[in-house]
Amino acid sequence: MGTLRVALLGCGVVGSQVARLLVENAGDIAARVGSPVELAGIAVRRSGRDRGDLGVDPSLFTTDAEGLVRRDDVDLVIEVIGGIEPARSLILTAMEHGASVVSANKVLLAEDAKELHEAADKHGVDLFYEASVAGAIPLLRPLRESLAGDRVTRVLGIVNGTTNYILDQMDAHGSGFAEALEEAQSLGYAEADSTADIEGFDAAAKAAILAGIVFHTPVTTGDVHREGIAGVTAGEVAGAREMNAVVKLLAICELGADGTVGTRVHPAMLPRTHPLAGVREAYNAVFIEAESAGQLMFYGPGAGGAPTASAILGDLVSAARNRVIGGTGAGGSWYADRDVRSIGDTMTRYHISLDVDDRPGVLAAVAAVFAEHDVSIETVRQRAEAGGDDADLVVVTHRASDKALRATVEGLATLDTVRSVVSVMRVEGE
Amino acid sequence: MGTLRVALLGCGVVGSQVARLLVENAGDIAARVGSPVELAGIAVRRSGRDRGDLGVDPSLFTTDAEGLVRRDDVDLVIEVIGGIEPARSLILTAMEHGASVVSANKVLLAEDAKELHEAADKHGVDLFYEASVAGAIPLLRPLRESLAGDRVTRVLGIVNGTTNYILDQMDAHGSGFAEALEEAQSLGYAEADSTADIEGFDAAAKAAILAGIVFHTPVTTGDVHREGIAGVTAGEVAGAREMNAVVKLLAICELGADGTVGTRVHPAMLPRTHPLAGVREAYNAVFIEAESAGQLMFYGPGAGGAPTASAILGDLVSAARNRVIGGTGAGGSWYADRDVRSIGDTMTRYHISLDVDDRPGVLAAVAAVFAEHDVSIETVRQRAEAGGDDADLVVVTHRASDKALRATVEGLATLDTVRSVVSVMRVEGE
Repeated sequence: MGTLRVALLGCGVVGSQVARLLVENAGDIAARVGSPVELAGIAVRRSGRDRGDLGVDPSLFTTDAEGLVRRDDVDLVIEVIGGIEPARSLILTAMEHGASVVSANKVLLAEDAKELHEAADKHGVDLFYEASVAGAIPLLRPLRESLAGDRVTRVLGIVNGTTNYILDQMDAHGSGFAEALEEAQSLGYAEADSTADIEGFDAAAKAAILAGIVFHTPVTTGDVHREGIAGVTAGEVAGAREMNAVVKLLAICELGADGTVGTRVHPAMLPRTHPLAGVREAYNAVFIEAESAGQLMFYGPGAGGAPTASAILGDLVSAARNRVIGGTGAGGSWYADRDVRSIGDTMTRYHISLDVDDRPGVLAAVAAVFAEHDVSIETVRQRAEAGGDDADLVVVTHRASDKALRATVEGLATLDTVRSVVSVMRVEGE
Repeated sequence: MGTLRVALLGCGVVGSQVARLLVENAGDIAARVGSPVELAGIAVRRSGRDRGDLGVDPSLFTTDAEGLVRRDDVDLVIEVIGGIEPARSLILTAMEHGASVVSANKVLLAEDAKELHEAADKHGVDLFYEASVAGAIPLLRPLRESLAGDRVTRVLGIVNGTTNYILDQMDAHGSGFAEALEEAQSLGYAEADSTADIEGFDAAAKAAILAGIVFHTPVTTGDVHREGIAGVTAGEVAGAREMNAVVKLLAICELGADGTVGTRVHPAMLPRTHPLAGVREAYNAVFIEAESAGQLMFYGPGAGGAPTASAILGDLVSAARNRVIGGTGAGGSWYADRDVRSIGDTMTRYHISLDVDDRPGVLAAVAAVFAEHDVSIETVRQRAEAGGDDADLVVVTHRASDKALRATVEGLATLDTVRSVVSVMRVEGE
């Protein structure tokens, strides 16, 4: 087999690292693939921009991405443009022209994984996207291949570094959300427009990709119940600390006892003894429960140019190797085709903090509301406010349907003795 | 493609779980492979033994392993016998007869990985052995494939559950080694003859396999410097605690600045802030440093019937899938062929605890010995014994060659003012 040629679509933070590593590590990559691998072209939005010293021949740059993926001499395409279009069309065109595709595009894969895998199968090419979830952490390949003889029952992931950084700062320093966000932005851990991170859109796309792989079922971002961290208060973080827990934004994918799949992204209190609780700063980690393997965790950097490029090059070496030996790796798998259940039917636990009148009978009234909705209480802690006539009442429930828990909270809010529902947060990890 | 047929060699703790899962999960496995997979036979040492209710046809059992691997209708062989022979000969015979092989045999792979991979290549079959290192944790496949475009520079692993359990008990309860070992044995975390675990032989085999894969270099158990945990004292564990560290048995593989490979297994003090420090009980975890990916960690159960079977079945599904599509996965890779350096040339740090005379000039004499061997001191802490004329002197060094550090310790032992060298332990993780 002769030299394999790679088209790179996009040359930003990640793409430039991919280009650099392809050149710098050419010797190692050739040895591992069994053939030399070289850049055929790099599609960029605007030509003439200074690309720094990537060690790349300047004549490789082109603004004609469409023309690049149609070229006969391109064996492999790396897509790091992001977003739905033109990435989707370029990937499909590349496959039609016989190229295997490596993508880091979580938004696209969370929407169209099934269709893109079908196109890959039709054209006999590989489609890999390890970098789309949890950056450099080898995750999708182990889930798809190493656990292929097992049954994953649950995934709990910290898959967004920006929100983990913010929540970690709030936990470590007692700061509020706005202050922690500002610090994250000044240090480059959060973008100026951090909506996709803060509101959980980024984590939801990753949850959809993970759920699709582990449950062999088509899941898209729209199936994922999503709540962000903008409403998390310093008081909630302190409340978590009091029960030896920490607040994390979790992406959760679970197989229900009834065989349905649930996917959700929301802040939750997690016991400090849980392996995910120690994941600090902008690191990512994904905790897996499987029937035979038990509890596994994968930990590492979730973003950044070089780490993401590492994941992309791992996929590239696999796809290139498959070219050399003439085959394809594990593709999409949707045979289970399970139903996706709504958040209301999901079994969760709530931590509810109330501001109540400090007088006899209050707890009885509160407990009656829980009983009315068949929600069982695990712990109650009441603390009178010094010098006032009100008290803090903190209730942690056992598992119940989210629907019943929400109805309980609504019922509590209507009680005369409850001055306000101070906070409601789910509890995970037990 | 018709039904794929599997020969299982060995039916002990792990083999029986493999047989059970092959039957119980047959539907999922068929969907993931693209063809049904069924047991062709199970080779056992003695027939007639009660195999419990594995859900397996009793006529599948045979004592003729050699005959089983020669059968024409066997596509895949799972070897869970362990040890060098007859496992090695059976694997080679199976490959000669065209079967792909999945093995959990660390002792054999740590000795003969290169030869076995060459045989697999020659006969166009797969050889996978994920279960040989860190049980259920997907590790070898991610290292071989997901990080194929990166350069791993260091592996720090807790790869032996028995010793981690013992050291964790010593840390948590202040118990001595003998007491913790006895408890581990009574709870089934340690075998009656636990020499292979305690003395580091088990971890050394795993270190050899890991080093071979990440450095693309043939490494065997004999190349691994090995020290066990039998000599670890309650005092050393307490000393580690005083410097906010914990004692762990680490398997370390590193790439030196000179391009040589170092591999070693020994107890070491690790800062409690290190991700590996929180690995409790019999869990395993492997911490990876790679040039682009940065710091990764893989965590999970390192042993046990079902977890190990999960890893084996993951390999089996991959090998079976390769049969269906007609190819093989990533094989052995030894192109780098680096030199393996001796422990003496390895750069490490020491924590040295001395019992010294409590009088002026002692520290000067001690410091002179370090200077004589060009070993730089990071911290010194001296504490007089109440009511005595001696003092504890604890020295932590900067990085120096192990040779120089050992010569320093020998020099210290000869000083008149040093009553005894109480303990010497390496410090890792910074």
